[in-house]
Amino acid sequence: MQPVVNDRWRGSFSVEALGSYHYTIEAWVDHFRTWRHDLEKKFKAGQDLSVELLAGAELIGQAIPQAGHGRDADLQTAVRMLSGKSQIPISAKMSVALSPTIAELMERFAPRRQTTTYTPELRVTVDPPLARFGAWYEMFPRSCALEPGKHGTFKDCEALLPRIADMGFDILYLPPVHPIGQAHRKGKNNTPSILPSPPRPSLSPEGERESPAAADDPGSPWAIGSSEGGHKSIYRELGTLEDFRSLVESARKIGLETALDIAFQCSPDHPYVREHPEWFRKRPDGSIQYAENPPKKYQDIYPLNFETEDWAALWTELKSIFEFWIEHGVKIFRVDNPHTKSFLFWEWCISELKEKHPELIFLSEAFTRPKVMYRLAKLGFTQSYNYFPWRNAKWELTQYFTELAQSGVREYFRPNLWPNTPDILPQYLQFGGRPAFIVRLMLAATLGASYGIYGPAFELCEHVAREPGSEEYLNSEKYEIRHWNRDAPGNLNDLIKRVNRIRRDNPALQSDERLQFHETDNENLIAYSKQTAAANNIVLVVVNLDPHHVQRGWVRLDLESWGLKPTDTYQLHELLTEARYFWSGARNYVELNPQFVPAHIFAIRRHVRREHDFDYFM
Amino acid sequence: MQPVVNDRWRGSFSVEALGSYHYTIEAWVDHFRTWRHDLEKKFKAGQDLSVELLAGAELIGQAIPQAGHGRDADLQTAVRMLSGKSQIPISAKMSVALSPTIAELMERFAPRRQTTTYTPELRVTVDPPLARFGAWYEMFPRSCALEPGKHGTFKDCEALLPRIADMGFDILYLPPVHPIGQAHRKGKNNTPSILPSPPRPSLSPEGERESPAAADDPGSPWAIGSSEGGHKSIYRELGTLEDFRSLVESARKIGLETALDIAFQCSPDHPYVREHPEWFRKRPDGSIQYAENPPKKYQDIYPLNFETEDWAALWTELKSIFEFWIEHGVKIFRVDNPHTKSFLFWEWCISELKEKHPELIFLSEAFTRPKVMYRLAKLGFTQSYNYFPWRNAKWELTQYFTELAQSGVREYFRPNLWPNTPDILPQYLQFGGRPAFIVRLMLAATLGASYGIYGPAFELCEHVAREPGSEEYLNSEKYEIRHWNRDAPGNLNDLIKRVNRIRRDNPALQSDERLQFHETDNENLIAYSKQTAAANNIVLVVVNLDPHHVQRGWVRLDLESWGLKPTDTYQLHELLTEARYFWSGARNYVELNPQFVPAHIFAIRRHVRREHDFDYFM
Repeated sequence: MQPVVNDRWRGSFSVEALGSYHYTIEAWVDHFRTWRHDLEKKFKAGQDLSVELLAGAELIGQAIPQAGHGRDADLQTAVRMLSGKSQIPISAKMSVALSPTIAELMERFAPRRQTTTYTPELRVTVDPPLARFGAWYEMFPRSCALEPGKHGTFKDCEALLPRIADMGFDILYLPPVHPIGQAHRKGKNNTPSILPSPPRPSLSPEGERESPAAADDPGSPWAIGSSEGGHKSIYRELGTLEDFRSLVESARKIGLETALDIAFQCSPDHPYVREHPEWFRKRPDGSIQYAENPPKKYQDIYPLNFETEDWAALWTELKSIFEFWIEHGVKIFRVDNPHTKSFLFWEWCISELKEKHPELIFLSEAFTRPKVMYRLAKLGFTQSYNYFPWRNAKWELTQYFTELAQSGVREYFRPNLWPNTPDILPQYLQFGGRPAFIVRLMLAATLGASYGIYGPAFELCEHVAREPGSEEYLNSEKYEIRHWNRDAPGNLNDLIKRVNRIRRDNPALQSDERLQFHETDNENLIAYSKQTAAANNIVLVVVNLDPHHVQRGWVRLDLESWGLKPTDTYQLHELLTEARYFWSGARNYVELNPQFVPAHIFAIRRHVRREHDFDYFM
Repeated sequence: MQPVVNDRWRGSFSVEALGSYHYTIEAWVDHFRTWRHDLEKKFKAGQDLSVELLAGAELIGQAIPQAGHGRDADLQTAVRMLSGKSQIPISAKMSVALSPTIAELMERFAPRRQTTTYTPELRVTVDPPLARFGAWYEMFPRSCALEPGKHGTFKDCEALLPRIADMGFDILYLPPVHPIGQAHRKGKNNTPSILPSPPRPSLSPEGERESPAAADDPGSPWAIGSSEGGHKSIYRELGTLEDFRSLVESARKIGLETALDIAFQCSPDHPYVREHPEWFRKRPDGSIQYAENPPKKYQDIYPLNFETEDWAALWTELKSIFEFWIEHGVKIFRVDNPHTKSFLFWEWCISELKEKHPELIFLSEAFTRPKVMYRLAKLGFTQSYNYFPWRNAKWELTQYFTELAQSGVREYFRPNLWPNTPDILPQYLQFGGRPAFIVRLMLAATLGASYGIYGPAFELCEHVAREPGSEEYLNSEKYEIRHWNRDAPGNLNDLIKRVNRIRRDNPALQSDERLQFHETDNENLIAYSKQTAAANNIVLVVVNLDPHHVQRGWVRLDLESWGLKPTDTYQLHELLTEARYFWSGARNYVELNPQFVPAHIFAIRRHVRREHDFDYFM
């Protein structure tokens, strides 16, 4: 470790494998270096060193046993020299005392007495690159059939894989693929059941309806479990376990990992309800407690009781759900609402799983208070959803991403940026038209090394909410099967492909470190840059946040952060349009038209002047 | 505990006795309050509550065993009501469910399951008021004789007590009062011994000189120990243990506590050297290692080896030195160079001593790196010397005292501000004349709730250094006996008395909390204020840091921090001159002449206008 300033020290080690490293710091008084340091000063002051040299011989002698035979020769010689009689010239003694060889041997072999060890032990977790950098694509398999009106299957998904891979995505994320409960099943647009609530509803053999949900409503994939099975089963309309495995493998072959949704909750028809009623909370009338957020009731969902007396069995079973899907090829899990489950459970479960499978990635879907989200990250979640969907203005984007990229949070919290999800159609997308979708895509893909879209709703700029003020989609896929014309006019496919290409070509965009905001004189223009540690790739992004009007203004770049002088000239390579510009100095003009593309993504190339050489760009 | 914002909670408890309090935080899910909260929402939504009320009855029933007979009546009734048949109207059930009595009983008696306790335990130390607020006066007893040329005694000190108390000091601090070694004794102005260094010097019976120090040189009080005794002995020229005890008691009677200097180091003549040679480091030639800071040698001082094999005996003996002086009435110790001794020792020693004597105060004389000083404070030192002597410019005073008063450091580090010490005559005092002394007095006494002066050198503006560039006094009392004419013209006695009076009259100056700097437009003018927690005493200080010239400029006061509006008029009562001013608004003019008094100390009185009343000041 090397001293920095003000009693701060710096040290580093390289990590070479996935998994958890534990480390700590041990401190001791280095008597040999202290002696050497003082000896030099006394020598320079011309003092008598006879006693000092003897003291050094003593110190060196103490290291001999530890060095042992074969490695102690130099130490033995040093002891003889330093404790030798006066015929040995002082200059020879000094050169032994100060020799780097002896210093190095002493560093290795000198006894360390009264050492102090820092507690608690520190941990660093080494995750795979996809934990840091990846583009996610969410889609509902049941909406993937080519023919309208048909229930999509894993085979249909497989047919779509080349298209998704070609758009440059890295991860295909599927909502739950399990059997869906019948009891209190939700209809289109979340139509509620109107049955008198208790007792527990049942579907008669004739298919008599108990709720306005039509007989063929497919229900919400998050109402997991039916008589056909629970979290370890595949809904038969989607295909078989074999089909699922084939999808995962085909995806992997073309560079796509499959992420599965893990939602620890049950429909009233889930086998657990029958087999393990003790895993649920019971109401005083003997019924099982359904989910609620008073006065809202979610009677199609039973939460699990993590504090049940039988918690050990429950926790083990839940962990085995992950294990089941890991065996079927899944390495990435998107975890539904982890903040409403036991934190001790997550800490235990994730650490157990990662011990065997350090390549696993867990994306936390916790839209909750900041400290709770950060806590889940510390407990083991690899990535997290965050407030990006609701950060639209320049000041709030700047403030939030400065916190994420520059405060202590960045050491453990990795944001994954989603402009939309099946649960979130932000107001900005509802009313900003196609330009709004492009703005949010640019921000997500460049502010976040990890980002994702809920497609094809995003590609097709689907923007109609269920009702005014709602963030729910009208005719949401959560409650019905949709049929998408992925090539409909106005789709964003080419632009998404280009942005993903730029992300892959520019390492600066593959990390959230070194994000830097730059001043602009127009509140609708946001400017920020990212660069690699070696500063050999610098990307500057300027976005017009106003989806309705042309915005223009001056950007003041922090050139120093890029290693440029205020007078330097540099080239900007616009990566969306392939245009090239030369800029000089910090202050430069930008104009962005939302009807064209409301953003610039520039690669900055520094103009380097070398002696005896012509100018060139590096 | 009450929630504040963003998952921060606040709670408090009152401390009632001196000593250490240990506390921690326990958290649990409050099922009853959750139930009550949800019940209210469901009631407002007009939902059927029959099952909910049963659930509440169950929760309340669980608290009955804990409440026990005599205190469970209300709980029993509530259970009966909530689980009662429908003849009980819902309004009656709701009023029981939401009643404050039941809430309070549940808070006390509801079982707390799966609680989580914060580790580690936290500690708060309650020190006596003198730890927070006090004016210290350092003097050498041997220079207190009325007759020039005589060695001062404790009796001479006793005669000076009324004068020191009258000046408004709270603590009389004495350098070491023990026998002083002969070996390598330092002469006037630190004249070094010129004897060939080893072997250990000795004074022949005839008093043959070994160094240029004259036969009657008294030596440095920090070279502790002679054949007459060590750290538990009184140097016979000063008087007896009885005289010492009498001094301490007489001082206490007039409101002065006596602080003793504890310097854990020995002269070569100290009895420990003979009786416990294993407590010192041995050099390879068999001699004992003297203190050094290469290439400087301090052959009159042997450091103790805190890492000796016999450390347990050494540590116990050192602790017994404190205990000895505690028995002789001392409650305050100024500890010499604690940072060069074992930190584990201090932590152990101070906590053992304070367990028996929580009223003790330990002032750390650690002029070293900031983190080391802060560490000593955390280990148990009550107060600390600091960088004040070398902070002269406005920006450095502002920066340093902002760190001390506003960063986390303030929770454990209490600065004691000394404009001079026997070791430190800062350049500013050497060349600024009498105004410089006044400036530094004002700053020390108002920036620091604890401050001290080394008198009478300070009162008499003693400013000549031993040589150019040195911070050592010429003819320092450390090496010779001085005779002071305390009433010499130009003395600062009256001013010091006035400043100490102002400190006692104004509670705002009795704490380092709520220090606030205010802007000025002149780099030579510094302005700051302190106020009490209740804001019923506000003191504003403006100092001209330039001891040579009149300085004038505008002060911009942070009126909001005082609870004033920008348009308010307020009265300034100048406490040094008794002048009164009315100011209005934030920006006001100040002019200070160093030839008069280069500082203002204002009490701020707010101008309060009440309806149906005439204006008055509160």
